[in-house]
Amino acid sequence: MKILHVLFALICCGTCWTQAIKTGPAATNARGAEYPRINSDNSVTFRVKADQAQKVQLLLNFQPVEMVKAADGIWELTTKPLTPGFYYYGVAVDGFSSTDPGSKTVIAANKETNVLEVPGPESEFFAAKDVPHGQVRMVWYKSNTTGEYRRIFVYTPPGYDDGKSRYPVLYLQHGHGEDEAGWSHQGHENFILDNLIAAGKAKPMIIVNEDGMTGAPLQIGPPPKPAPGSAPPARPRGLGDMKYEIFDSIVSKDLIPFIDANFRTLSDRVHRAIAGLSMGGGEAFRIGLNHPDKFAYIGAFSPALAVTGAKTGYDGALSDPAKVNKAYKLIWIGIGREDFLNKPVKQTHEELEKAGINHVWVETEGTHSWTVWRKYLADFAPLLFR
Amino acid sequence: MKILHVLFALICCGTCWTQAIKTGPAATNARGAEYPRINSDNSVTFRVKADQAQKVQLLLNFQPVEMVKAADGIWELTTKPLTPGFYYYGVAVDGFSSTDPGSKTVIAANKETNVLEVPGPESEFFAAKDVPHGQVRMVWYKSNTTGEYRRIFVYTPPGYDDGKSRYPVLYLQHGHGEDEAGWSHQGHENFILDNLIAAGKAKPMIIVNEDGMTGAPLQIGPPPKPAPGSAPPARPRGLGDMKYEIFDSIVSKDLIPFIDANFRTLSDRVHRAIAGLSMGGGEAFRIGLNHPDKFAYIGAFSPALAVTGAKTGYDGALSDPAKVNKAYKLIWIGIGREDFLNKPVKQTHEELEKAGINHVWVETEGTHSWTVWRKYLADFAPLLFR
Repeated sequence: MKILHVLFALICCGTCWTQAIKTGPAATNARGAEYPRINSDNSVTFRVKADQAQKVQLLLNFQPVEMVKAADGIWELTTKPLTPGFYYYGVAVDGFSSTDPGSKTVIAANKETNVLEVPGPESEFFAAKDVPHGQVRMVWYKSNTTGEYRRIFVYTPPGYDDGKSRYPVLYLQHGHGEDEAGWSHQGHENFILDNLIAAGKAKPMIIVNEDGMTGAPLQIGPPPKPAPGSAPPARPRGLGDMKYEIFDSIVSKDLIPFIDANFRTLSDRVHRAIAGLSMGGGEAFRIGLNHPDKFAYIGAFSPALAVTGAKTGYDGALSDPAKVNKAYKLIWIGIGREDFLNKPVKQTHEELEKAGINHVWVETEGTHSWTVWRKYLADFAPLLFR
Repeated sequence: MKILHVLFALICCGTCWTQAIKTGPAATNARGAEYPRINSDNSVTFRVKADQAQKVQLLLNFQPVEMVKAADGIWELTTKPLTPGFYYYGVAVDGFSSTDPGSKTVIAANKETNVLEVPGPESEFFAAKDVPHGQVRMVWYKSNTTGEYRRIFVYTPPGYDDGKSRYPVLYLQHGHGEDEAGWSHQGHENFILDNLIAAGKAKPMIIVNEDGMTGAPLQIGPPPKPAPGSAPPARPRGLGDMKYEIFDSIVSKDLIPFIDANFRTLSDRVHRAIAGLSMGGGEAFRIGLNHPDKFAYIGAFSPALAVTGAKTGYDGALSDPAKVNKAYKLIWIGIGREDFLNKPVKQTHEELEKAGINHVWVETEGTHSWTVWRKYLADFAPLLFR
């Protein structure tokens, strides 16, 4: 047995993942919380204390599953083995939809939402390894479009503070109901880039994350009381209400000039990319196509796009394919086979292909999930600024 | 009436706070959430949806208050008028203690905890104003003490990226159950310093926040199942279990050398300060006193200190007051009159005074709260590096 252990240690490199050491409390747990626990078969056991509750549900990826009452006011659930990757979840107790105090939260669906990471060998590419590390900076800047100070996240690559080098910039956007912290907290953009840069697979670059939820708060919790004598406030409720023009203005008129003035960037279009996931993929696609003077690379990860099929579709791209092909060094579109947006995104790919617009089309395993989007960043970033 | 409005507008400067514009959804709400709402008398109305619940409590500053069932499965509570400032809170539904999805959360009591900001004129000093802004950087570094990559928060002052200047450093610590994000998320250290620096009241400085919860996870949620055949894991449960030595080693052996190697610091002792609140105040006091070669300034905000009264008290400080008086340019101790630690902290002050150890002693209004600690930072920072 000891010989086997030694052999295993020799075969397995120092940083590689082994099932044995990844079971127990999830890495995404609150400090000291023993549950949720990852079991050796990748099933996950959740426990919640709710002494006087009649009904407790786990909301795994927003889908309710009944938990079962155990002793001492504890409710428990063990899932089936889960595919390694990223999961959103919450807990509902007697109609109260909230979060599990055992796990950390991030912003999703416009509110604090639990995160669960099920580790596996495929987690290696976004792990904190013994390589030079960049920083993720919270930066505040004044937007003339909105008249407010806005917080952005800016990844600066390893060595940024040391030298005088200038860097290309990737503008990278989150999905609907998330925020500017998404690509750092859920996406681990910093570790993905640190690892790619250390391996010589991606050029050192700056990444900028803004808050793309411009003009579309969704209803959270109880409806508001209107002020005496006044009608209830109008509340936009979905993607259809998104104010694309506001976000285009923020990015093209406020954000890019601020970044170029305050970071050591290469500020020509061939050193600027824009990408995003889901709603942010739609925003990146449109802003990219509307500003060929500013961007040479576009990435759309499981994008939420308005599919029109008309000559005016995709902000006019279909009407002049030659111009598009000349302007962009890369248009990259990726979608998972099990993603609910697979069909419309595939239709986009087919429309672009039919029109003769050059693009990279990638169909992968996976659903509409950060598990997929982190991989897409790791696949997309090495293609930039070559 | 119109004349009164005009007069008011003339008297009131552009950025000053007026009651009228601060009512409505709290600034700390989740995006689009209408509740909690600040009322014009500074009372706050909370609403929670819990259709099938029997009992719903608001946990305001961790103290339970019954909410009342209204129509449509909504539970409601309006507080008495609240003193402007910072509040932690949560919601308990049928014995399930969690958070209100209507508000953002931060880490407190070792888990995600709701925050509520009640604004007032006294909120101005930490507001995002039209002044030059610094950055708050998430930075990862390898600790030899723990063998792990640790995340720290680093405030760099306005202009840091522009020049070649070197800056003094304040190491600033959170309280028990919080983490390295506390001084940014709850404390708004960046806006406090931005405003002080813009007004010429504080020297531009770097601020570093580490995670001081070394070795003391508290029990969160249900107890763990021990592995088959093994005893339950030992779990330290309070301040008494804190591993001071671990955090001293992290700060003095790992963190300070990393910061001095990777940021443009002034690295002599007269340009280095350490401060903290509550548990972090105790850590700052002890690390400061144990390393007179490294620190010339110590700040203890409502500190949790072991009061011994013996000659060996305060890590030996009492045994050689002359040495202490020579070593430190400032020892600053502050406590609120309504703080539950008022008595022991006052005792510390009296012991130091009796021993002839020079220190600034500040007793203010307030409880054990970020409302107080933010003011203490604004009072303490201007005294540094003069």
